[in-house]
Amino acid sequence: MSLFNKITTTVLTQPVLEINLNKLIDNYKLLSQIAMPAIPSAVIKDDAYGIGAYEVAKVLYEKAGCRHFWFAHAYEAQKIVNILPEAKIYILQGIGKDSAELFQKYKFIPVITSLKMWQFYKKHQIDGVKPVIYIETGLNRLGFREDEIKKLSKKDLKSFSLVMSHLACADEKDHFMNARQLENFKYLKEKYFKDMPASLSASDGAFLGADYCFNMVRLGAAMYGINTAPYRLNRMKNIVTLKAPVMQICPLQKGDFVGYSATYRANTDRKIAIVSIGYGDGVPRSLSNVGKVFFKVSGKWTEARILGRVSMDNIICDVTDIKGLEVGNYGYLIMDDYTLDDIARDSGTIGYEIASNIGKNPRCIKKYISGTK
Amino acid sequence: MSLFNKITTTVLTQPVLEINLNKLIDNYKLLSQIAMPAIPSAVIKDDAYGIGAYEVAKVLYEKAGCRHFWFAHAYEAQKIVNILPEAKIYILQGIGKDSAELFQKYKFIPVITSLKMWQFYKKHQIDGVKPVIYIETGLNRLGFREDEIKKLSKKDLKSFSLVMSHLACADEKDHFMNARQLENFKYLKEKYFKDMPASLSASDGAFLGADYCFNMVRLGAAMYGINTAPYRLNRMKNIVTLKAPVMQICPLQKGDFVGYSATYRANTDRKIAIVSIGYGDGVPRSLSNVGKVFFKVSGKWTEARILGRVSMDNIICDVTDIKGLEVGNYGYLIMDDYTLDDIARDSGTIGYEIASNIGKNPRCIKKYISGTK
Repeated sequence: MSLFNKITTTVLTQPVLEINLNKLIDNYKLLSQIAMPAIPSAVIKDDAYGIGAYEVAKVLYEKAGCRHFWFAHAYEAQKIVNILPEAKIYILQGIGKDSAELFQKYKFIPVITSLKMWQFYKKHQIDGVKPVIYIETGLNRLGFREDEIKKLSKKDLKSFSLVMSHLACADEKDHFMNARQLENFKYLKEKYFKDMPASLSASDGAFLGADYCFNMVRLGAAMYGINTAPYRLNRMKNIVTLKAPVMQICPLQKGDFVGYSATYRANTDRKIAIVSIGYGDGVPRSLSNVGKVFFKVSGKWTEARILGRVSMDNIICDVTDIKGLEVGNYGYLIMDDYTLDDIARDSGTIGYEIASNIGKNPRCIKKYISGTK
Repeated sequence: MSLFNKITTTVLTQPVLEINLNKLIDNYKLLSQIAMPAIPSAVIKDDAYGIGAYEVAKVLYEKAGCRHFWFAHAYEAQKIVNILPEAKIYILQGIGKDSAELFQKYKFIPVITSLKMWQFYKKHQIDGVKPVIYIETGLNRLGFREDEIKKLSKKDLKSFSLVMSHLACADEKDHFMNARQLENFKYLKEKYFKDMPASLSASDGAFLGADYCFNMVRLGAAMYGINTAPYRLNRMKNIVTLKAPVMQICPLQKGDFVGYSATYRANTDRKIAIVSIGYGDGVPRSLSNVGKVFFKVSGKWTEARILGRVSMDNIICDVTDIKGLEVGNYGYLIMDDYTLDDIARDSGTIGYEIASNIGKNPRCIKKYISGTK
C-alpha cells in the first residue's frame, strides 16, 4: 500500500472561466470619461460578447448608472429586461415579423436599418417608442443608403430619436476610412437629421477623439478588456481568466507522436502535461501546435507550447523545462499577461470571437468576481 | 403613400438552426450495423457536439435502444441523467475532487485515466460501479502508460468493467498509426486485461473493420453526420441546417469597401445581400472573404461568396448574379449540399468544432425535427 501513502496532489477535471466585473466597471468608467460629454451606453449583444449579459447589465445598471443598452436581437434582450426597469433598450438588428411581438411586449427600441424595415415598422408601430435610424456611411453592411433616405417623408425623418452609423476601421487610428465615414455621417446628418441626437462610435471610435463621439458612444469590446486601439498600449483592464487543471504529466519519448493526425512528433525526449480543456470549451482548435498554456509554479509564471491538435476536451503541452509542476495545478489559457487579444493573435482571429465562443460555452464553470474590491 | 402599396417581402431578423433527429437515428442504426457485433454506444459529450445532448440522448434511448452514453464531464451528464434511467453513463475525463460528489449521487462510471486518478478513486469509490480503465496506445493524451499499469495490483487490474483506448488517425484508412495502435492495444489487453470487455474505436475506427471494433464502439461524429471516413463518400446523412434571413439587398459601387478593416473592395459594380448571422452565432470568422452562403431561388440552389469580414451579427455576400432574391429569403450556411464538413473545410477546421460552436450557441433559434418521418 506504499503507493497510496504520498498523495500530495489533487485530482481536478473541470475548466473554470472567471470574469472580473469590478474591472469591467473600471473600464466602463474610464471609457465614459474619454468619451465625455457623449452619453455612454453599453453594447451587451451576443450575451455581452460571451461575458454574460445578465451579470454585465446588472452591474452597469446598479453600480455605474448606465441607462442605455444595445442588443442585436429582441430575443436576447427579453431574457434580462426585468433587471433594467428604467433603461432604454435598443435592438441593432431591428424589427421583423419574427420579433415584432417582443417589441410590442417590452417596448424595445428598434434600430431601423432599411426602407423595407421602415415599411414593416409603420405597420407594427410601438406606442411610446421612437425608433433609431441607422445610416450607411462606408461599412456597407446594414443601413439606409442616401437614395433610401430620400424616399422618407419629412414627417418620417422626424420620427426617430437617434441617428446612428458605425465605423469600419476605427481600430486603425490613421485609416482613411475614419475621416471618410465621419464626413459622410456629418453630411447625411446635416442634410436629413439636423437637430437629432447622433451616435457614430463604438469603443474603438471613442479613442479617435471628440469629433467622433457626437451625443452617444456605444461601449463594447474595450469595456470587456479588448484593446480596440491596438496602435498603443491597452488602457483597459483584462477581465477574463480561463484556466483548466493538469490531469496528467508524463514523459514523451523521442519518436512519439502527439494527438489527432499525429501532427507533432517528439524529436528529443520531452515531458508533457495534459490539460482538461479543448475546443469543446471554446478554445480555438487553430491553436494546435501554435498556442501556449501558462503555469504559475513557485510564484513565477512560465509558458508551455501546445503540442499537436487541440482536441475537444484536452490540450497537450510541452512542460519539459517546467520544474515542480504537479497534477491538479491549473494551466491558464487567458489571464492578465496573456489576454483575449493575445490568444486571438495566436489563433488568427480577434478577441471578440474568442470571448463569444468561450464565454457562452455552457461547459465552462463560470465564476464572477464582483463587489469585494 | 404609394411607397407602402407593394410590400411583397417579409422582414425577418433571426437565424435558425434545424436539427434532424430522424436522420441522426438513421446514422446511428447504420453505424451499429457496420460495427456489429460490437455494442453501439453514443458519445454525447460537449452537449452532443453542440447538437443537443438532451434531445439526442432522448431519441437514442427511446427510439434506438441505446443504453451506453459517454460524456466528458460529470456536470454535463447530471443535466440529463433523469431521461436515461436504465443507461450506463461513462465520464471520459474521469473523476476528481471537483466532481466526486456528482459521481456518488448519480452512479456515473468514471473512466480512470492515470495512476493518480486511480489513487483518488480508491478513496472515493462508488458503490455498485466498476470503473473503466483508459490505456494509452499512441495518441499521447490521457491514459495509463504501461509503467503505470505495472504499478496496479492484480486485484486492481480486475476492478474495471472495460478497458479502452482511442485512435489518433482513424480518419485516414492507411495511416501507419492505426495498425500501431491496434497492436499496442492488443498487447496491453492480452497482458493485463485478458478477459475484460474492450473498446478501441470511435465512429472513425468503426469504418476500419471488425478488428478495430472489439466489444463496444463509441459513436460520435459520424452519428452527427460528419464524414469520419473522408477517403470515400459520406455514408452518413446530414442532420444540420443553419439559415438566416436576408435583411437587405443593395448595390455596391465600384470602389466601395465592405466590412471591418475594409478587406474587400469592389472592382466592378456589385449587388450585395446582408444576412442576419455572424460569428456571434458561431459562424467562424475565418470564413471572411472565403466562405459561401446558399440561396434557393425559384427552386434552384445557387451560391454567393462572403465579402469582407464576417462580423458578430451579419455576413455580407455577393448576389450580383442571383436574380429574384428578396429580403426575407433565407441564406443557408449549412445544409445537405454544404455540410458541416464543407463549411469546416472552407474555414480551416473540422466539422466537430463547427458543430460545437454553432450548436451550443444560445443565439440560434434551435428547431428539432423528429418523429414525423
